[in-house]
Amino acid sequence: MPQGKPNVVPQDGLTTRQRRNRPLLLVHTGEMKGKSTSAFGLALRGWNQGWSIGVFQFVKSAKWKVGEESAFRALGKLHDETGEGGPVEWHKMGEGWSWARKQGSEEDHAAAALEGWREIARRLGEERHGMYVLDEFTYPLHWGWIDVGEVVRTLRDRPGHQHVVITGRNAPQELVDAADLVLETTKVKHPMDAGQKGQKGIEW
Amino acid sequence: MPQGKPNVVPQDGLTTRQRRNRPLLLVHTGEMKGKSTSAFGLALRGWNQGWSIGVFQFVKSAKWKVGEESAFRALGKLHDETGEGGPVEWHKMGEGWSWARKQGSEEDHAAAALEGWREIARRLGEERHGMYVLDEFTYPLHWGWIDVGEVVRTLRDRPGHQHVVITGRNAPQELVDAADLVLETTKVKHPMDAGQKGQKGIEW
Repeated sequence: MPQGKPNVVPQDGLTTRQRRNRPLLLVHTGEMKGKSTSAFGLALRGWNQGWSIGVFQFVKSAKWKVGEESAFRALGKLHDETGEGGPVEWHKMGEGWSWARKQGSEEDHAAAALEGWREIARRLGEERHGMYVLDEFTYPLHWGWIDVGEVVRTLRDRPGHQHVVITGRNAPQELVDAADLVLETTKVKHPMDAGQKGQKGIEW
Repeated sequence: MPQGKPNVVPQDGLTTRQRRNRPLLLVHTGEMKGKSTSAFGLALRGWNQGWSIGVFQFVKSAKWKVGEESAFRALGKLHDETGEGGPVEWHKMGEGWSWARKQGSEEDHAAAALEGWREIARRLGEERHGMYVLDEFTYPLHWGWIDVGEVVRTLRDRPGHQHVVITGRNAPQELVDAADLVLETTKVKHPMDAGQKGQKGIEW
């Protein structure tokens, strides 16, 4: 529940309204599930504001979060047809877009991830979206495929009013330092501990 | 990313498929935001499976999660018109439904919360939904408005294949013990620490 009460009022010369409406960099990290699902839950709010939602998935997974993708594509289609909510773009590394479709070697994946990031940087420069979800983007940062310093500078200098949500384990400290909000998910209990495998509607 | 590898294989006489498809009780607790948003992100997966989604909000809030509500109502409407995804019902304590509309005293709110829980128990008995989101349901439990033992028994004995997600701070230990999955969200950094108030599209 939002409390609405800031803990301190900074001496930054901004009015409450100006401060309230600053674009945010949010990082969802930690060992437990919930990082991506809460990013997509947040994107529902952005969609309802009529913002353009851009989702960029950085790690190939056997299960591509098909549930979220289908639902957001449906919401985007609804917007295009009725004007309700905002438009939605959903991009996966290696599919469509301008990313390399190469398979296999780590170098290819690293190049594709870097190309993907460059496309996002271009979009930030052009103020293409109101909210960006960079799903599992911490991995190419953690693996050194993309330079964290460059990412932080680009995000810090982004123009206009663009919110950015980054998800994934092992968020680099430099990214955490640059973020306005950092959420960490912790496992208290998980069905796999009791020998249960993932299932539809829950894990994907 | 789902790993797909259980840590142990229990000797429970079930096949992997039977074990995989057990209905889950999930609890999202902790001090930080992300509890409800990740529940709604999860519900997108359930919607995409064609399940009936039932959302029940237990705590009146100045900001009623209007973003998620609008998006899910849109998805529910889309289902009704095109058959895509699953149907959606969204209920708020004190509005519509069979809940008392009384305002004001704590006793009235406690009675309304209990009546709301009884309605959910009826629905569980009738297998009305594939996924239930009991949003901020831990509060009436924590405050003693609803008996935790009764809730745990009802959930444990629920028939069929119904997933239940419960969100909110201060989840009672008995509920945590009964859950299959418990996610805890932790604050690493929050804009309010820097004097920033909540804003549209992010907090609601």
